Amino acid sequence: MDKTLQMYLDRLKKLDIRKMYEGDFFLTWEKTDQELEAVFLVADALRYLREHNLSTRIFETGLGISLFRDNSTRTRFSFASACNLLGLAVQDLDEGKSQLAHGETVRETANMVSFMADVIGIRDDMYIGKGNTYMHEVVDAVTQGHAEGVLEQKPTLVNLQCDIDHPTQCMADMLHIIHEFGGVENLKGKKIAMTWAYSPSYGKPLSVPQGVIGLMTRFGMEVVLAHPEGYEVMPEVEEVAKKNAEKTGGSFWKTNSMDEAFQNADIVYPKSWAPFAAMEKRTQLYAQGDSQGIQALEKELLLQNAGHKDWCCTEERMAATREGKGLYLHCLPADINDISCQDGEVEASVFDRYRTQLYKEASFKPYIIAAMIFLAKCQDPHGMLNTLYQQNKKRQYSK
Amino acid sequence: MDKTLQMYLDRLKKLDIRKMYEGDFFLTWEKTDQELEAVFLVADALRYLREHNLSTRIFETGLGISLFRDNSTRTRFSFASACNLLGLAVQDLDEGKSQLAHGETVRETANMVSFMADVIGIRDDMYIGKGNTYMHEVVDAVTQGHAEGVLEQKPTLVNLQCDIDHPTQCMADMLHIIHEFGGVENLKGKKIAMTWAYSPSYGKPLSVPQGVIGLMTRFGMEVVLAHPEGYEVMPEVEEVAKKNAEKTGGSFWKTNSMDEAFQNADIVYPKSWAPFAAMEKRTQLYAQGDSQGIQALEKELLLQNAGHKDWCCTEERMAATREGKGLYLHCLPADINDISCQDGEVEASVFDRYRTQLYKEASFKPYIIAAMIFLAKCQDPHGMLNTLYQQNKKRQYSK
Amino acid sequence: MDKTLQMYLDRLKKLDIRKMYEGDFFLTWEKTDQELEAVFLVADALRYLREHNLSTRIFETGLGISLFRDNSTRTRFSFASACNLLGLAVQDLDEGKSQLAHGETVRETANMVSFMADVIGIRDDMYIGKGNTYMHEVVDAVTQGHAEGVLEQKPTLVNLQCDIDHPTQCMADMLHIIHEFGGVENLKGKKIAMTWAYSPSYGKPLSVPQGVIGLMTRFGMEVVLAHPEGYEVMPEVEEVAKKNAEKTGGSFWKTNSMDEAFQNADIVYPKSWAPFAAMEKRTQLYAQGDSQGIQALEKELLLQNAGHKDWCCTEERMAATREGKGLYLHCLPADINDISCQDGEVEASVFDRYRTQLYKEASFKPYIIAAMIFLAKCQDPHGMLNTLYQQNKKRQYSK
Repeated sequence: MDKTLQMYLDRLKKLDIRKMYEGDFFLTWEKTDQELEAVFLVADALRYLREHNLSTRIFETGLGISLFRDNSTRTRFSFASACNLLGLAVQDLDEGKSQLAHGETVRETANMVSFMADVIGIRDDMYIGKGNTYMHEVVDAVTQGHAEGVLEQKPTLVNLQCDIDHPTQCMADMLHIIHEFGGVENLKGKKIAMTWAYSPSYGKPLSVPQGVIGLMTRFGMEVVLAHPEGYEVMPEVEEVAKKNAEKTGGSFWKTNSMDEAFQNADIVYPKSWAPFAAMEKRTQLYAQGDSQGIQALEKELLLQNAGHKDWCCTEERMAATREGKGLYLHCLPADINDISCQDGEVEASVFDRYRTQLYKEASFKPYIIAAMIFLAKCQDPHGMLNTLYQQNKKRQYSK
Repeated sequence: MDKTLQMYLDRLKKLDIRKMYEGDFFLTWEKTDQELEAVFLVADALRYLREHNLSTRIFETGLGISLFRDNSTRTRFSFASACNLLGLAVQDLDEGKSQLAHGETVRETANMVSFMADVIGIRDDMYIGKGNTYMHEVVDAVTQGHAEGVLEQKPTLVNLQCDIDHPTQCMADMLHIIHEFGGVENLKGKKIAMTWAYSPSYGKPLSVPQGVIGLMTRFGMEVVLAHPEGYEVMPEVEEVAKKNAEKTGGSFWKTNSMDEAFQNADIVYPKSWAPFAAMEKRTQLYAQGDSQGIQALEKELLLQNAGHKDWCCTEERMAATREGKGLYLHCLPADINDISCQDGEVEASVFDRYRTQLYKEASFKPYIIAAMIFLAKCQDPHGMLNTLYQQNKKRQYSK
Repeated sequence: MDKTLQMYLDRLKKLDIRKMYEGDFFLTWEKTDQELEAVFLVADALRYLREHNLSTRIFETGLGISLFRDNSTRTRFSFASACNLLGLAVQDLDEGKSQLAHGETVRETANMVSFMADVIGIRDDMYIGKGNTYMHEVVDAVTQGHAEGVLEQKPTLVNLQCDIDHPTQCMADMLHIIHEFGGVENLKGKKIAMTWAYSPSYGKPLSVPQGVIGLMTRFGMEVVLAHPEGYEVMPEVEEVAKKNAEKTGGSFWKTNSMDEAFQNADIVYPKSWAPFAAMEKRTQLYAQGDSQGIQALEKELLLQNAGHKDWCCTEERMAATREGKGLYLHCLPADINDISCQDGEVEASVFDRYRTQLYKEASFKPYIIAAMIFLAKCQDPHGMLNTLYQQNKKRQYSK
């Protein structure tokens, strides 16, 4: 066996990941460090196998259910790719096509679509206090359904973005960082700036900045959260970040200056989001069906945004990062100045210089999702990966 | 081989099911008793195999085409699950996406989508006199296409609900009953009440009550059809039910009293439907494009419904069933009092008590559909099931 | 090995098709004669294997991405069938579901959906100068993505219809002709009339007539393009046709008389299309968002069409073809007199007489698409086909 794959397997073998089997993936901070490491290692191992034209299929038949609350190309394709990689067919449960709703109905629908479901991937990030709750309702329903003999298997939930966290995105970002820096052991003391950036649209989800500070604080890094006043994220997640930093010998601090955040940063992640308080208010207005209130709020938010057009990832700011070579991250698509909008999150020349790296960053997501499923489905992930290698079954027969 | 599976196979071997091979499934009363028994046995056998993590795949590649005239989560997922279980990929032919219509076009479209189709599942229950006719048009078209060398195989049609029958639903209901009562041999003399129930919506299809009286009268049971005056079902199907009952030593009778129907019933199936005559009228109005007429009819129907709010499956009525423990059935979703509507088909406490059983009832549908396909595709279903068992190929490799 | 399959393989072995490996399929006239022959041979061989219930799967897992700019049943199903035949799952990238657009975004989206894509099938035929250009943008993006390590494989593009050519349609038409005439060697000197025909709709794409004259002129046939004045096709494609004819000893000429075109024709292909100049104008109007201009143009085009209702494929005209038995072709769906419209492209009795042949013509398309993919994915297509035959793996296990 090649050394690289051997290393992934050796490290995986040492981890205590017993609780991942038949588990779910909601939030990164509900997972132990070893569990997160397992996701990275399995993602790398699956990628290694696929790159060597080896089949990573672990299902002969089976379904992956995708449930998206709003349109999504990237996440949809990442999930479909991950399912396909493992041998699962995808069946979309679109709200337009279905009789989906909250409450009692969730329990019923969750069971009705899961008779042969091995995985359920949900993206529900629109309303504060709703998405993660909904995912738990689904998992509770199918867990009960399985216990009562309705379902032959309990499908595994993968959180494809909720109101609190965006674990598949942030772990893909992190795996990208690990590869760029040559290993997680090289991250101690590195400075990463998660900063707000101006966008002409409003209401972008908080799950990325929250997910980033909730995850990146676990590797001994100096994590800075920067945003204009009024763009606070959920206080509970800031608490998570603080505790993480304390444990790992890293740090977590906040600033209202983008410049300060960029100063000597090894990594920058400039991205727009909506203020937490405003998103909460919007959720209430939607619940009340107050469309006038919503319109007024949108107007107010756009006006508030417009006061911060200077929060842009410029060449000047990039020059202030570590040796002028800080790693630029984005979850894509970005609002690029003079390309997708007049004023946006990033200058075109910056974006263009990092384009290939940004695409690579995104390329980890299907593997992260597949790894989460793999770890929930294999009691012995190390053994299964070894089997996939040893059996030498080609993914593409003609190669 | 385990005794349970052996028993399914032994019984299957004795049945004369030669006509099912390369056949279609339109209406249960077009099938012999042995053919229906074969569907139940194959469904149970496939479930047994899947529960024991054995692959039930009989196709290396192939397509199942689904064609739904209206939105549907449950049926869509049941069909997708059945196809996946056998190794087929699903391709949806949605009207929105296609150039579908009646007449000459049916013949053409049916051929155009079937070049590599092994199965076509159709749900078309909206208009009286249309759905079943349409399915026959499709089957005639692909049969001719196959005979003339256009199609390499004749895809098998599975009726996923038409204006006359809902065979996959009713056979799933029946298989549930068989399991609940410990075998079809225990059903002789049992009383089942198919009764109308109030719903604030109108125009629910007749295919369930029709399918139930057309099927359940074949097992020596006492089948009662109860509804308010004016909610008659298709007279042809009542004729089918009468003849069935005569043959099997059971009975079929009607009443306009929900209480009478529930009295000492072993099984109750309270569910709303629209009057047959009104549905016929509506079909004509649609054909004429008379939107004013349709609106007037809808108003009239809702008013007519509202006069029968007392047709609800209450705790009081459940207490009148056999020892107060009659089995409550529903095809789901149900209109539940104070949950999905103010007044509905069933009281919340009744529904909740039977919830797990209702979900189990629904869980048979993917297997019933898969069994129908299996029997149309295997010349020797007994031998194929035996092979699936003996080859010992795992569905999920990691288990 | 059966003689028929042996013949396909023997002929395939002699062809120089090295450039097809890891290539794309944009326009037939960008391919050599040997490359086109390879597509026909592989299509025939794959069909042979499937007809003999042999698996043609060359992928254990993998994705085919379909991208349709407008609704399409036939092409969608052909592409899905081709992918399934080879073992790929289809993932649709519908514009409604995605964040698709032109320019910078194409590059990004193309990469984002391609992490595990083996094939991308695109239909984009609406606007002159756009569809083919867009396909090249996509291929450039994924080629670069692959070179830069973003994508592990470069997905193969299959042009499912652009503004210039409709290669999968025209090659299916051609393979149908080859089979009807008993071999490509029998086509020398045969007369084929690609003629305009009246339709009550307007704006039908030019890709079929253009594709036909660009392809059919390569087999030594006499190719006639007939249309009323003002219905010119792209001049560049006429140039292609002329040059092709010169090379192969065939001919290409134009006429404004449908009768002249039909006279002693061995094959006729009467079909409506929009004038090239008008389509160009429409593209500009759309670009300018000039909806009044578009409406005015549509009115004008319909009026222009209405002046040519006599351009119909009548029994009388069919009688003037070679021995009254010319082969009637159409890409379907056709506008049939008194069936789909009052006045249309073809008389009902003509269409009906050729119906089975028309369906057979269409049945080649999934195989043509599969052959294009196969040739791009197999470095040794001959060897792979031989393996598929020798391994004797059944497509349907129960047969």
